[in-house]
Amino acid sequence: MDITSDIHSQHISRQFNHELEELKTHLMAMGGLVEKQVQDAVSALLEGDSSLAERVVDNDRAVNDMQIKIDDECTRVLARRQPAASDLRLVLAVIRAASDLERIGDEASKIARNAIELIDNNVGGRGFVEVRIISEHVRRMMRDALTSFARFDTELALQVVQEDEQVDNEYQTAMRSLMTFMMEDARSISPVLGIMWILRALERVGDHANNLAEYVVYLVKGLDIRHTDPDDLDQELGES
Amino acid sequence: MDITSDIHSQHISRQFNHELEELKTHLMAMGGLVEKQVQDAVSALLEGDSSLAERVVDNDRAVNDMQIKIDDECTRVLARRQPAASDLRLVLAVIRAASDLERIGDEASKIARNAIELIDNNVGGRGFVEVRIISEHVRRMMRDALTSFARFDTELALQVVQEDEQVDNEYQTAMRSLMTFMMEDARSISPVLGIMWILRALERVGDHANNLAEYVVYLVKGLDIRHTDPDDLDQELGES
Repeated sequence: MDITSDIHSQHISRQFNHELEELKTHLMAMGGLVEKQVQDAVSALLEGDSSLAERVVDNDRAVNDMQIKIDDECTRVLARRQPAASDLRLVLAVIRAASDLERIGDEASKIARNAIELIDNNVGGRGFVEVRIISEHVRRMMRDALTSFARFDTELALQVVQEDEQVDNEYQTAMRSLMTFMMEDARSISPVLGIMWILRALERVGDHANNLAEYVVYLVKGLDIRHTDPDDLDQELGES
Repeated sequence: MDITSDIHSQHISRQFNHELEELKTHLMAMGGLVEKQVQDAVSALLEGDSSLAERVVDNDRAVNDMQIKIDDECTRVLARRQPAASDLRLVLAVIRAASDLERIGDEASKIARNAIELIDNNVGGRGFVEVRIISEHVRRMMRDALTSFARFDTELALQVVQEDEQVDNEYQTAMRSLMTFMMEDARSISPVLGIMWILRALERVGDHANNLAEYVVYLVKGLDIRHTDPDDLDQELGES
């Protein structure tokens, strides 16, 4: 390879790496927005702030737009760069992760809509403690999942996967105690159901954070393949 | 281009088309299995058949395996064929569709688990009519969404999108009437909640069918680009 084409290919490769970094940066920005949406939706409920809840519902459009933008970028990178091996896995993982973040955004929006109804009906604080505890838990999971994605940190990712089980347990316990409330006081049925939908939405946020963490493991498994025998690598990627 | 290389490139292109057809075939097979899972889960509830419900829970592993297989195939096609334009869109749409089908499988599994609990507690038929009606509706949506995918039929796809709103209305009506039951009879709270979770799962099946239909529109939009000016096409795909 002559020097000119070597410099040229280094340039291409630097540009490509830059594009991949950009994908990750945009995914992290989307993650930040979505995390704020979950936080605002829960704060709106706990503080009885309807207008905050309405802003969350409105902002869902911005979340959706970010997913479309990231999807377009990924499609462009696939078409233009035709990445292989771990780069391909990264792009596919970003597409999947953006889809989970978009769904977390939907859950935030559902929480906000339920919050608006509960606030309108001037509902007391039954179940609020559970909502706060579980929301803090799943938001931490989201943050850790995104951090593990940014750093390709499988250890942190596996921790998120383990935490998802704890959240499921907390959720089940909260649901049982809320059902008991309902049985004791028929007037509480409607508001307590509203809280149940919110808890269920939070539990799903945990599921999506769990998915994000699983993509990191998938990604890093791909990276590990780089260190294996090239023959096995071909077989693994089916590039025979 | 000489004749030999022309024949060679025709061969490659035929092989590639065959691979894309295979992807669609496997997606349809997965769709068929998932549809059966939803049907069996609902039948298990309506007919009080616990062992059928347990088979649905067990079969969820087969659904997950199919998704992994389809994902692997798509990744291989992307790495090996480096498709562009509408072929790339097709592969990405298959990845997304398989993810929605996997989630429908999860919902079927949730329905089955709730059914087992309801059957164990020897629960009567409250809410069964609603479950039957909504399940028939969302199963038809699933079938139509898959058919529209197989045929690139946007008209049918748009019909599915419209039906999703009807399902949402049916779901809301059913939930309100079940809440009334709960308020009238505290002993019905626990079983009626079980039915509510099942209805919610079915409503989500409708949402996923709606997503499938949306991918068809995205796909065909991609196909339309083929008929536009090549300059605009380059711009559209960012292959500048």
